[in-house]
Amino acid sequence: MKKSVGAKTLLFPNPVLMVGTYDQAGKPNLMSAAWGGICCSEPPCIAVSLRKARYSYDCIVERKAFTVGIACEDKMAEADYVGITSGRDVDKFAVTGLTPVKSELVDAPYAAEFPVVLECRLLHTIEIGIHTQFIGEIIDVKGDTDVFSDDGLLDIMKIKPLVYDASHRGYHGVTSCIGRAYTIGKELQK
Amino acid sequence: MKKSVGAKTLLFPNPVLMVGTYDQAGKPNLMSAAWGGICCSEPPCIAVSLRKARYSYDCIVERKAFTVGIACEDKMAEADYVGITSGRDVDKFAVTGLTPVKSELVDAPYAAEFPVVLECRLLHTIEIGIHTQFIGEIIDVKGDTDVFSDDGLLDIMKIKPLVYDASHRGYHGVTSCIGRAYTIGKELQK
Repeated sequence: MKKSVGAKTLLFPNPVLMVGTYDQAGKPNLMSAAWGGICCSEPPCIAVSLRKARYSYDCIVERKAFTVGIACEDKMAEADYVGITSGRDVDKFAVTGLTPVKSELVDAPYAAEFPVVLECRLLHTIEIGIHTQFIGEIIDVKGDTDVFSDDGLLDIMKIKPLVYDASHRGYHGVTSCIGRAYTIGKELQK
Repeated sequence: MKKSVGAKTLLFPNPVLMVGTYDQAGKPNLMSAAWGGICCSEPPCIAVSLRKARYSYDCIVERKAFTVGIACEDKMAEADYVGITSGRDVDKFAVTGLTPVKSELVDAPYAAEFPVVLECRLLHTIEIGIHTQFIGEIIDVKGDTDVFSDDGLLDIMKIKPLVYDASHRGYHGVTSCIGRAYTIGKELQK
């Protein structure tokens, strides 16, 4: 039996995305976005949604680029700080001690301390409502050398990405693998 | 030190979304989407990306509606089956034993067994590349009465949503809460 909770933005899970940009003066900034996700395989694209009032908004429009760092358990306080302050008021890198790294591929910075980063070129700008969705083509993904597994692939258990619960406004982690995709469903095919 | 892995659709975490639609004949169908996320707060909207070849594509275009069920640990095999078969070939509800429920709000069905469902009206259709992004306005969210906590909010620990790891193609769960959002970052403000 299901009960209505109204027209709300409740999805499980949400990511915690550290969106990196340069402002007009070239100051690096980070913002936190939970409204986002992969939106195309070819070209590989990610969508992140921002309100126009966000300091990062003009930065993305002007530089036509952004990065997306994956927030992780070890840097939870820093990731949260990024989400509760504005680059208009503070230098988030200076306060958090995070290290800005200039992308060599797109006109945007990322924080060295987040284990995975997606470097993106702005491809589409979609006005939806109070949020604008920026679709970025993923030019490259980079991971810290210590978050790969022996098979050479990025290892989610080493990355320890944060999950954002918008219902209770909490951060969660990710458990060990509990099933193989494209595999466990085959039982039902018989 | 970061190592490049190329232009890939690697994000952590991804959701596992059970997209419900009716086809022309009125047959209910489900597909699995990992490419999606909330994209606007007002109006509340969710984006899901599909390839044109998907059976669900025409269904969404014609009915201008879809539902999004949250795949959960208890129904992992069913959710995976939904992702490896096509509604062109099989009746996924019949094979899995999932129960189709007609939404009273939008022209689409959902599976009763997934604990949370978002009922969506198609708002925008964005052609990106091999994927088309459907942006749906969330008309209502419904949850099973047993996935609410005492405060009346949806409880992620009772929902037990699946997390999809696109790197190793695995399903994971979500751990207990490890930090309060908009709170733990305040330490750094001092």
